[in-house]
Formats: sequence, structure tokens, C-alpha cells
Amino acid sequence: MQLNKEQLQSVNSGGLDRHEAEFDFLADKLTAAGTDVEALVGDLADFQVAIPSWALGAGGTRFGRFSFYGEPGSLEQKIDDVGILHALTQTAGAVSLHIPWDTPTDYVAVRERAADHGLAFDAINSNTFQDQQGAAHSYKHGSLSATDEAAREQAIAHNLEVIEVGKKLGSKSLTVWLADGTTFPGQRNFQRSLVQTEDSLKQIYAGMPADWKLYIEYKPYEPNFYSTVIQDWGTSFMLANACGERAYTLVDLGHHLPNSNIEQIVSTLMLKGKLGGFHFNDSKYGDDDLTVGSIKPYALFLIFNELVYGMRNNPQNPDLAWMIDASHNVKDPLEDLIQSLEAIQEAYAKSLLVDQDRLSAAQAAHDVVECQEILQDAYRTDVRPLLQRARLNRGGALHPLRAYRKLDVRDALVRERGRNTVATGL
Amino acid sequence: MQLNKEQLQSVNSGGLDRHEAEFDFLADKLTAAGTDVEALVGDLADFQVAIPSWALGAGGTRFGRFSFYGEPGSLEQKIDDVGILHALTQTAGAVSLHIPWDTPTDYVAVRERAADHGLAFDAINSNTFQDQQGAAHSYKHGSLSATDEAAREQAIAHNLEVIEVGKKLGSKSLTVWLADGTTFPGQRNFQRSLVQTEDSLKQIYAGMPADWKLYIEYKPYEPNFYSTVIQDWGTSFMLANACGERAYTLVDLGHHLPNSNIEQIVSTLMLKGKLGGFHFNDSKYGDDDLTVGSIKPYALFLIFNELVYGMRNNPQNPDLAWMIDASHNVKDPLEDLIQSLEAIQEAYAKSLLVDQDRLSAAQAAHDVVECQEILQDAYRTDVRPLLQRARLNRGGALHPLRAYRKLDVRDALVRERGRNTVATGL
Amino acid sequence: MQLNKEQLQSVNSGGLDRHEAEFDFLADKLTAAGTDVEALVGDLADFQVAIPSWALGAGGTRFGRFSFYGEPGSLEQKIDDVGILHALTQTAGAVSLHIPWDTPTDYVAVRERAADHGLAFDAINSNTFQDQQGAAHSYKHGSLSATDEAAREQAIAHNLEVIEVGKKLGSKSLTVWLADGTTFPGQRNFQRSLVQTEDSLKQIYAGMPADWKLYIEYKPYEPNFYSTVIQDWGTSFMLANACGERAYTLVDLGHHLPNSNIEQIVSTLMLKGKLGGFHFNDSKYGDDDLTVGSIKPYALFLIFNELVYGMRNNPQNPDLAWMIDASHNVKDPLEDLIQSLEAIQEAYAKSLLVDQDRLSAAQAAHDVVECQEILQDAYRTDVRPLLQRARLNRGGALHPLRAYRKLDVRDALVRERGRNTVATGL
Amino acid sequence: MQLNKEQLQSVNSGGLDRHEAEFDFLADKLTAAGTDVEALVGDLADFQVAIPSWALGAGGTRFGRFSFYGEPGSLEQKIDDVGILHALTQTAGAVSLHIPWDTPTDYVAVRERAADHGLAFDAINSNTFQDQQGAAHSYKHGSLSATDEAAREQAIAHNLEVIEVGKKLGSKSLTVWLADGTTFPGQRNFQRSLVQTEDSLKQIYAGMPADWKLYIEYKPYEPNFYSTVIQDWGTSFMLANACGERAYTLVDLGHHLPNSNIEQIVSTLMLKGKLGGFHFNDSKYGDDDLTVGSIKPYALFLIFNELVYGMRNNPQNPDLAWMIDASHNVKDPLEDLIQSLEAIQEAYAKSLLVDQDRLSAAQAAHDVVECQEILQDAYRTDVRPLLQRARLNRGGALHPLRAYRKLDVRDALVRERGRNTVATGL
Repeated sequence: MQLNKEQLQSVNSGGLDRHEAEFDFLADKLTAAGTDVEALVGDLADFQVAIPSWALGAGGTRFGRFSFYGEPGSLEQKIDDVGILHALTQTAGAVSLHIPWDTPTDYVAVRERAADHGLAFDAINSNTFQDQQGAAHSYKHGSLSATDEAAREQAIAHNLEVIEVGKKLGSKSLTVWLADGTTFPGQRNFQRSLVQTEDSLKQIYAGMPADWKLYIEYKPYEPNFYSTVIQDWGTSFMLANACGERAYTLVDLGHHLPNSNIEQIVSTLMLKGKLGGFHFNDSKYGDDDLTVGSIKPYALFLIFNELVYGMRNNPQNPDLAWMIDASHNVKDPLEDLIQSLEAIQEAYAKSLLVDQDRLSAAQAAHDVVECQEILQDAYRTDVRPLLQRARLNRGGALHPLRAYRKLDVRDALVRERGRNTVATGL
Repeated sequence: MQLNKEQLQSVNSGGLDRHEAEFDFLADKLTAAGTDVEALVGDLADFQVAIPSWALGAGGTRFGRFSFYGEPGSLEQKIDDVGILHALTQTAGAVSLHIPWDTPTDYVAVRERAADHGLAFDAINSNTFQDQQGAAHSYKHGSLSATDEAAREQAIAHNLEVIEVGKKLGSKSLTVWLADGTTFPGQRNFQRSLVQTEDSLKQIYAGMPADWKLYIEYKPYEPNFYSTVIQDWGTSFMLANACGERAYTLVDLGHHLPNSNIEQIVSTLMLKGKLGGFHFNDSKYGDDDLTVGSIKPYALFLIFNELVYGMRNNPQNPDLAWMIDASHNVKDPLEDLIQSLEAIQEAYAKSLLVDQDRLSAAQAAHDVVECQEILQDAYRTDVRPLLQRARLNRGGALHPLRAYRKLDVRDALVRERGRNTVATGL
Repeated sequence: MQLNKEQLQSVNSGGLDRHEAEFDFLADKLTAAGTDVEALVGDLADFQVAIPSWALGAGGTRFGRFSFYGEPGSLEQKIDDVGILHALTQTAGAVSLHIPWDTPTDYVAVRERAADHGLAFDAINSNTFQDQQGAAHSYKHGSLSATDEAAREQAIAHNLEVIEVGKKLGSKSLTVWLADGTTFPGQRNFQRSLVQTEDSLKQIYAGMPADWKLYIEYKPYEPNFYSTVIQDWGTSFMLANACGERAYTLVDLGHHLPNSNIEQIVSTLMLKGKLGGFHFNDSKYGDDDLTVGSIKPYALFLIFNELVYGMRNNPQNPDLAWMIDASHNVKDPLEDLIQSLEAIQEAYAKSLLVDQDRLSAAQAAHDVVECQEILQDAYRTDVRPLLQRARLNRGGALHPLRAYRKLDVRDALVRERGRNTVATGL
Repeated sequence: MQLNKEQLQSVNSGGLDRHEAEFDFLADKLTAAGTDVEALVGDLADFQVAIPSWALGAGGTRFGRFSFYGEPGSLEQKIDDVGILHALTQTAGAVSLHIPWDTPTDYVAVRERAADHGLAFDAINSNTFQDQQGAAHSYKHGSLSATDEAAREQAIAHNLEVIEVGKKLGSKSLTVWLADGTTFPGQRNFQRSLVQTEDSLKQIYAGMPADWKLYIEYKPYEPNFYSTVIQDWGTSFMLANACGERAYTLVDLGHHLPNSNIEQIVSTLMLKGKLGGFHFNDSKYGDDDLTVGSIKPYALFLIFNELVYGMRNNPQNPDLAWMIDASHNVKDPLEDLIQSLEAIQEAYAKSLLVDQDRLSAAQAAHDVVECQEILQDAYRTDVRPLLQRARLNRGGALHPLRAYRKLDVRDALVRERGRNTVATGL
């Protein structure tokens, strides 16, 4: 299934006048305050976030899963779903595959399908946190950190195979999320696990093409509940340094202990040129994988404020890989993703509004009150007209969610795919 | 010192045109969406928050305190400070005293001073968490929960004296924050402490005039680091029920364990008719006592959403006592309070914008996506023009902070009071 | 499969001499310090903990599950597993069933099987957090709290059926763990959910026989990640009070926000006569469901200290229902349960050693140092000889875990049941 | 004041018989299990922990302070206090000074006094978190991270002066705890603060003698409540690497976010040869600075288990600087420190009992149950007779706390110093 321009134009048409008025009013105000509105809208339009293939079906918890309807049953259908998202939002221009859940059978067809939707293949993801049917060795006792040589070799080999898949699709980076860790004190030797992990990552790094990047995630707990080998940014950073120049830390918003100051971590990593990518979601308790911006939108803005600062001031840091990594337990996955994409664009737009020169001056003057005013002035601005304009400029929907509903997309998918399909993933 | 209308009009004048334009644009939009803008502005104008007398000087931590200049050195000067805040913001129409820090010497003069500024005396606060010079008994081992009869009697008597002070000033309620607890396991008997506390509170309750209310705070930790007698809303609620109809739970935003869902607590208490008051502040780690809205403004909005719901739907719950309870370690205390008042009004305004009927319908239809849209549509609205209009309608400042600075209020205070005065408090 | 006394005696025989020496040495010391060792050993022997039927298979996380071997494939086999545990430890004298996972087909046979093993049927558990195959209504949007009348009625009816099952087995109590809650702000109306829940619980309460008890669990989050209807002890306590005298709060160690003081909650509930039951496990991050005592054994001791205090001083509180509620992701479930039972007995024994009179005196004297000494003196004591004696007195194993391994129990189970059976449960 | 051997022998005499019996019984058991008991007792006797000079008076919180009696009023008296602790426990063989609170006036006299007590001078501590009377520049807006050149230079110069003080006393290391950070988002530029801090630390490092070490502490929050420049081990580790070979990370147990796995951090740092020192205390909520072992003794044991592992297997890591860093709000400071020292020795002794070879084998076999058994077997052992023997061998007290009380040490101090002296510190 694919949405075409005419469909979007037709649902957009009724709201254009109001949009024009709101955009002009806001643009006048911002222009008067010194903002280059056109440039800002351009930045928004250029900002593209990858959609992971596993996020297109309903997620669940260890207590069960309530399924959704019309889930994509194949890689092709997953790409179609991302295509729909991109057509609507114009900000989901890439897909991030997960192997083995999404191993293509016909690479040419898959690439063409993605190209049809205007989608690139972003970072590709390996999986060594579950045993695959027929696997010779289990990851129950570790994968890249395993002391069992055979399991470790299998995990390394799997990552190298994932790179091969990625190469055929045009990916340029590999994301490694390592669930390895322990559930009880004493279960494994911390140092041995860390040394093995470093060695494994180096082998994977060595197996990457020269223009690829390696992204190393960290996470304090879950699925292991006592320790995790790569428990924090410090460990990931250390491992990335050990691997080499093209190895980077990847930050997932939900992978932190309570009350962590994530924006400061982002800032430090960009200063050191080692922030590789970013996984968006939101959470109240742990790795809850909720819709982006649904719980702590101000924290997201503060993080974006550092990201924007780094993108402007840290040439030592590469372009970042942006991805949504959320789970959809009670919402239509596509609607959930539309809300996430909107929240990301909103936070980005607001952080672009921060007057960095005035902020620097207020910081130098120790005018803490004014520093807060500057951030909050940007944050309090209703930037939705700017997001709309960025989408319209690229041919997207004025209101992606309303368009999605008006066009009865889910019903069409159910008709096409059947009601009770189940997507691969968690 | 007192700000007069002419001063405010003069600083307001330059911004009125822009304000008119912005207000009209927003009002049109909101009216079209079904909002009664005039009523909403009226609600905002009516919303008054008490300023605690101890928040007018610089705060500190156990590691020290960096002083600020021109702090109020007397109760009269504290009232003046609140008067200035109220003149600017028109939303700080009450002062909340703390005894013994603020015991008046001349009640008539103090009442007149407050009346001059248009200020009422809200809930009055007792202090049994510190030993006062010359006190016969120490609270080191507890106050209202003490097993030492003499210390306990002293603490009860102090609360009764505080009520007497309040009566002379026109207060109608007493807030009890009890620091009592333990720092080490085994230090005291939990049950005995709780029974003693209930008994003490009942004696205080019995000593209140028939039109007074008792507010019982809770807090999980600090200054005690193992246990606190009134550790959570459940304990406070139980004690309030034991005391009687006019005893209520008071919620302080900073007094919760990490990740608490405070809005749900608020909702439950209002359903049961037992939410008495609310202390505003913000925090990232513990009872950080930061400027309201400076860390988690969306959480504040969600709480207000429940408060507004309760105010409309829970006649069993009384009018609430609103107070800011923050500490100002690195900002001018008055500027900090201005920012807090703005954040409170903002959250209130946004929660008033929530379309409760549509929300109810979406909830009934299990349309989780739409529920979020409704909340976020309100939250994303830039409500500053509404706040400005509410202030202007009452003769306040268009931009309170800018006015405060333009009028050189702090300099004037320093000239009047001297540079190194120190306010009583923490 | 069933272990007989001869098998146990044979594995015990080699260690009896050492045990005698260690027990005598410790008993002499404790007796000299005023402890009635025989009574203490008797208390330990009388202490029985229920094993939930779902804990006999391997657990998992949302990221997957690594299976174990020889898991019980039927209710009869589950009862056998508990029988083995009880034969070894003499402290697992009850089984707690979960409906519909364990609905018996032949009640007489099931009761006889349990009786053969010396097992009683403790609290029975309902399940409204998952949809059962063929169910008319889904719990996706709530069960006892549902606004959909049909789903709510189904959930109530299910609980009433569970009571019927329990009656036929000799259970005397129903445990309700309600997963109901929301994943996003605004998703449901807090007050309506709470009111519905109270109403549903009252209907279930009314459907219980006059000698049954209702246990109401609470939990702050998971599987819902924004709010949970019964989020804390205060809410459970309020609901239990609303239901009636035979409704109680049930505390699960893992169901608390970070840093909660659980022992104080236990103490408060016993003072009010409302602590009904206790679910043992351990955790570092959230509801990790780890082996009891594997992470925070001192906290467990402090909780037991309050439980022992309450059992002695709070006649208003009923006998408690004790159960292990853990998940076994990387250990043999039976071995894990043996370790849990040992940790429970250890904490209980140590808390029985606390000299309550000396503690009271030290508390009265505000001798905080001595209070700590008294607790730590008990905690530092190596009580394993006491646990061994209690087990031997009842015909159990000197070292349950070693006996389990020496008797090759798991191998025997695999031979009997096959390797890849999978138990019902999570 | 000084305790002499005769006093200690006299209080010890009554308990020696029982001690002999208990020690022999335990030693036999441990020897049979393969432990070299004499070597273990020797290790315990060699283990020395520094006492910080500021821990000898009562501490407080931001809500106030309840004073204690007979506090040391001078550096000489502080050294006497540590001397008393060391005489009793034989494990407090060093003092750690804090400048400017403890700047000596007569260095020779101070060194002789310490030598009389058998005390060395361990790491010396600087203070840039408070303004000192008469200081030219304030640290309100930062010290080593300050963007104000003058404040930064003052802070660097202060550290260099502290080194000079330390040199005269025989210290060989400087501990820098940096409170620098922000209380509000936007207040300062993260990257600039970090760069300045690195630069300042390098200047201090360059000013150290060639045989000195620099210890860099980290802490997530307090006294700043939004961000801290050196927020975690990763930041400290990065800075230590930047400074040079003799710069190390220092871990304070209370300086972590909730649920942190501290033992894993310790293990990683030792693997990298970068763990310099360790500050002992305990906590339930934040940096509560409670008596060591009073809240989470098992966590302390797990940490010691890694420390012992590292001391044996990581020659790349230097000897560690051990210090107690606690605050004494409700206990006699000396009694509190005696309890802390006992808890440290206990955890150390238990970790020495862990059979590392069996643990390695169980880990290799993925026998998670057995790994836990091995740790818990060591932890459950009552090691107090071993601690007593280690003390007795060095001429200390059998029961330090009982001896302290029997000898009426506090009364003697009050008589000598007066009742209401106040020690410098927090």
C-alpha cells in the first residue's frame, strides 16, 4: 500500500488557510525576534528519523501482549508501513532493519520497494539476546561476552553476517545492543566479561567496510537484573575508544538509571566526538519504550538543545543516526509513530529557536534567571505551524494523524493483509 | 517599599500593542475551538498562590549557602516583598507565615501592612524540626512523635501557640510538616511513633477553631534518612481521617520517591474529599525545591489537569491552599518566585484548555491516541497572552520579570535594607 | 515423583556429626544470652511458605525466555514439584494455584496428591491481566476497573469462579493482583477507574464464603507504564477498608518505587490489622522477581523484624499468607526455590534472635548506637545450624540443595517428563 | 587524651576466654574448608582506613543540626580522637585532613602528635565548595570549572596550597571533590565547564610532587540539583586519563544514582588500573552519609569482593586509599566511626572467605546457583571472632564499642574540652 500526493493534497486542502494565517503570525513574531524562519523550516524538513522494522507491530510485556490488526507480515509490508509514515510526515525517510527478523530474500526487490517510498536503509541491527531456532549455541550465558568460545564465535559471526546484509541494502552502520549481563551476584566475572566483549567488538569492527560505523548501545538493566556488561555511557565510550575511530556510543533515552542527566551525557560525548546515534522514546519508570514526548517533553527539548549545540559546534562529531525505538502496547503502531515523529520535530524546532548568543551572554553574566527565560521562551512557543510548513514544503500532510484517519489507512491495511497478522519482533 | 500602578503602567505601555495582537489571535483560535476565553482569563485572574515568608531570602544546602543581597530582615519587609510580587504578578495574594521565624510583635501593624499590599494570611506553619534557642526540650529524638512526654507536650503546645498567632492574623488553617523519623534501622518503634503522632495531631486538631483546617504534609526522607513517620500520602490520609473532617492531606511536589505518579495521588485524594493544600516547586532528584516548572513542566500540567478536574467534579473536596515552597540558592529570590508564579499560571491555563468532554469521549472509546492528542493540544498552546491579559485586567505587569528589572527593584531594596541582611529561614 | 524419608536420611547421614557440633556450640552461646533455642527452632519448623504453581517453570522477560528442562506439564506434576521442595526443606507446606493456568479436572485426585505430599492449598489467584483464548471480552482496556460493563462483569465472574475452584480444594483466601492501569497520560479517568475497582472488589468480596479472606495487591508500574489503579499500599488499604473486615492488603517485596521503606509499610498495616499476606522475592531495579535474599538480605531481615514484632504485638492482625513470588530465568526453578526458602528461614531466624526488650529499652534511652548493635548482633549470627535443626526435626534434609543434587532430582524429572516440557505461566 | 594498653587489657580481660573458644571453633571449621586462617587474620590486621578530620563532630542537614558534646575544637584534638579510635580498633591508622578547616599552625607538633598515636596522614582534601571568609572571589558560580578566570585561578591556587600543607605532613595524595555544577537547565555550558575543569585539574596535577597521586571524586547531584560537572565514574575516568598516570578515580559509595551497580564500576576501574580510593558510608536515598554497613551490608560485601579480586589480580592498579566519609547526626561521632570500622572489617573478612577458585569453576560451568551459594556461604559466616583476633594481635580492644563505653571516653572528652565545643566541618 502506498499513499499518493493527491490523497494528501485532498485531506490537506481544508486546513491550508488556517495554517497560512498561523504560520504567518508566528513567522512575523519570530522574524522580529531575529530568527531566520525559512532556514529553520528548512532544517526541520531535512531532519529524518529512521523507523525500526520491529516497531510496526504491537509490542508487549512479560505479562502478555494484546495484538493489533493489520500488522505487516513481511519485510515488504514493513517497508510499506514506513513508506506510509514518510508520505504523511516527510520525516521518516529511513528504515532500520533487525536481523534475523528481517533478513531479505530478494535484495533487489527490497531495495526497489524502499526506493519507491523514498526510504534509505539506516543502521542495521543484530540480535544476540535471543536464541534463534536451530542455532547451534545458546546465548543464555552470554553472547559477545560469553566465556564459551563457541557461543561467542557464533555471536561474532552473526554480526558479520548482519554487516553483509546491510552492505547489500546500502546501510552504512551497525548497531549493537548487547543484553549480556547477569541476574545474580557472582554469576560471572565482571572483568572477564568486559575483556571478552571488547575483544568481540574489535573483531566485528575489523569486519566492517572502511566507510561503516559501529554504534555501541548501553543499558543499566533488563533483561538482566543484576548487572549488564555495557551498563552506562562510560563503558560504551571506553569500548568505542578501544575499537577505533569509527566506533561510537549510541544513546537510547530509556536506558538510564532514575534521574540521570542525559543531556549532559550527550554533550560530553559530542565534545569527545563519540556520539554516534540516538534512539528516541519516552519513559516514566525504566525502559518503558513509550511514545516520544509523551512523558517528559521538556527533558527531550533539553537534550535536543545539546544536540543542536553539538551539531553546530562540534565538527569532531559525525552526523548522528536518529531512530525511534518504542513499543506500542495500546496504540495503533503507525499512529504511535506519527505522534513520536511530531514530538521529535517539535523538540527540534524549539531547540532551534533558542537564542544561543543571548544564552552564552547570560551564562557569562551568571544570570541564571535569564538563562532559564531564554530556554523557556523557546520551549513555550507553539511551533506547530513551523512543523506543518516543513511537511507541506515536502509534500506531506498538514496533520499527519488526521490524514491517517481520514484516509482510513488502518482499515485498508487490514483489508489488504488480514486482521490477525503478527509482525516479527518483541 | 511598594510598587504603584503608575510604575507598572509605565513599564507596560511599550508592549501593549503586541500583546493585543497576540491575545486576539489566540483568542480567536480558542473561541473557534469552543473555549470561553473570557471565563478562562477570569479563572486565571482569580487564582492566587501564597508565598511563604521563608522563601524571600537565599536558601542553601548542608554544604553551605551563598547569600543574596537586600534580603528582608523583618516580617514587615517580608510582607513588602510579597507585596511587590503581588503588584507585579497579581497572583501572589497571600502570605504564609512560619512560626517562630515570623512571630509578629505588633499584630495590628502587620495586618495593616498586608492589607495595604492586598495580601491575605494563608495557612500558618509550625516548626518542630529545629530546636529554638532556650527551648526546654530538644526535638532531636522527635517532636509530635516523641516518646519523651515533655518534648511531645512542647511540640503540641507550640502548634497551639501557632494557631493563636494565626487567629490574630486572620489565617484559617495550620500546616504541619513533621520531620520526625529515624536515621538508622531499629532507632525507634514505628508503631509507637505513629500512635503518638496520631494522638498529638488529634490534640492539635481539637485546639483549632471550628472554622480552621489542618493540613498534614508527608515526605519520604530528609532530614531523616532511614524512615519518616509520615512517609507518604497513605499515612497522611490515614491520620487526617483519624483527626476528623477538617483535617486534610497536603501534597508537596518534591516529597515523593523517584518516579511517583503524583497526579494520581491528587486525584484519589480529591475523590475522597481529603486534599487540603498544595506546595509547588520542582525537582530532579529529591526535595530539590527548585523553581516551579523548571524541570518537569509537563508533569505539572498533568497534575493541574487532575486539580482542575477535581475542582469541577469533586464538591466533597474543599478549596485548596496553594503555596510555593521553593528554595533559591542561585537566583534572586523574588525573580525566582516570579518565574514560579508564571509557571503555575501557565500550567493552570493549559489545563483549563483541555476539552474535558472530548477527553471523556475518547477515554470511553479507548482511543488512547486521541486522549494524548487532546492533552497535548492544550499543552502545546502558547498561553502567555492569556496570562498577560489576566494580569493586565487586575492592574499587574505585562511582563513581571522585565518590569521587576526595569524598575530596579532589587537595587531599591538593597538601598533601603542594606546589602548583607539575612532573612530568617533555612 | 516423590522423595522418601530413606533417601533423605541417607544423604543427611554424613553431615550429622558436624551439624550436632555446630548446633550445640551456637545453642550454648544463644542460651547464655537468654534465647530459648528450642522454642526458636520450633517457630522455624512451624513457618510454612506457599509455592505458587507458576514458579515451577522457567520465567522470562519481554525479550525472550530460555527454557529449562523437565518442567512440570500438568497440575499434578506441579504439585509433585512442591512436594519435592517440601520433603527437602519442610517449609514449603502449601501450594498457591493460579486460575486458569491450573484449573483441576479431577478435584479429588488433586487434593489427594497434595495430601500425599503433606501440602495444603493456600490463597488462590485469579488472572485478569491476560486474555484467555476464546474469552468473550478483552482486558486490554481494563478488567475490574474497566468502564466497559461486559469486560468488567467477565472479570468479576472469573474471580467468583476462582473462588469456587478454591472452595473445592480447601483454599480459604483469594489474592487479586490487578494489572489495570494506563500507559499514557489521559488514557483513562483515574477516579472512574478507582470507583469501578472498588465496586468490583466489593462484588467479589460479597461472593466469598464467610470464612474466606480477600488479599489485594498493589504495584506502582508494569505491565502499565504510566499509572496503575492500585499503585501503592495506601490505595490497597483504602480499598480493603471499603470492602470489609476480611479484606486485606498484600505486600509483594518487588512492588515498590525505588528506595521505599517497606518495613515501615508492613508495620503500619499490622498496627491497623490490615496486612493479609506477603509475597517474597528480591530485586535491584524493579519487579525483578529474583531469588529471595539474593540482593538485599538485610532489608529482608528488617522486614521480618517488623513482621515478628507484629505477630507478637498485634492481635488485631490475622495470620499472614506467605508465598514466594519469583521468576527463574537462569536457574533450575526448584533450586532457586530452595535458595529462596533458605533465605526466608534465615531472615526469620535472625529476627527471632532480636532481643526485643533490650531494643525497647535502648529506643527509650535514645541510644541509637545500641539499637543498631542489637539488630546487627542478631543479623551477624550464623543461624544455619538452627535452620538445619528445624528441618531435621521434621524429617527434612540437612542441606536441601546438596540433597537435591545428590539425589539427581532434576535428571529424574527429565526422565519422567521429557526434556522440553513447558510449564504454564509467564 | 590517649588510651593506653593497660586500659584496653583491663577491659578485654573478662571476654578473652569466650573469644578463644569462638575463634577456635570457627578457625577449625574454616581450616577444614581450606582457609588459611592465620593469613586471613593478618590481612585484617593490616587493613587500615583513614578517618577524615571533619567526621569527628556532629553533622547536620539543611534543616539544622543537633550538636553533640565534647567535640574536638582543634586539629590536635581531632588527631586525639582518631588516636582513640585507632587504639580501640587498630584499623584507623591514618587521618585525612581537610583544608582550610584543618590547616596546622605548628607542623612539627601536629606530626608528632599523630606519630604518638601511630597515625599516618593519608590523602589531603581541598575545599572549593564554600566561600572562605575574606576570599577575594566566590565559588558561587563554580571553582575549577568556573568561567571567571579569577575564581578559577583562586581554586587552582588553593589546591596547590593544600598540596604544600600535605607535603609538610607526609601526605602523598590529594583528593578533589568538586561540587561544581548547575541548579537549572541552561545555567552554564556543559562543554565549557568540562573543558575548564580538565584544564584546572591538569594544572593541579602538574603541581603535585612526582610521588603524589590525584584522586578525582564524582557525584551525580547535591549541592547542585540539575547537573554536576563530574557526574559519574565515566567523567572522572576520562579526566583522570587526561591528567596522567598518577590521576585516579575515587569512588564514594553514596555518590550514585538509585540502583547503581557500584561493584561493577569498581571492577572496571581496577581492570583499567584507575581506581585510586574509596570513601565508605551507607545510604538509603542519596548521599545520606550513614554509618557503613547500616543499610546495605550485602552490597558492601559484594563491593569488597571485587576489591579483593582486584587487589589480587590487577597489579596495574595501585594500592587504594580507604577512608570513611560519613556524617553523624544522631550518634556520638566516635561510636559511629567504631561501628563503621567494624562493618568494613566484617565485609573485608567475608570477602576474603570467598573461595575464588570454586567461584571461577562455578562461573565457567554456568552454575548460577552454586555461584550464589559460594558468595552466601562466605557472607553468612559470623566472622566476628576473626576481627577480634586481628585487633587483639595488635593490642586493640576485643569489643571496641564496649571498651569505649566502659572507659567513659566521651565523658573524659567532655571534661577535657567542655560540653559545647563545635568541630569545624559540615
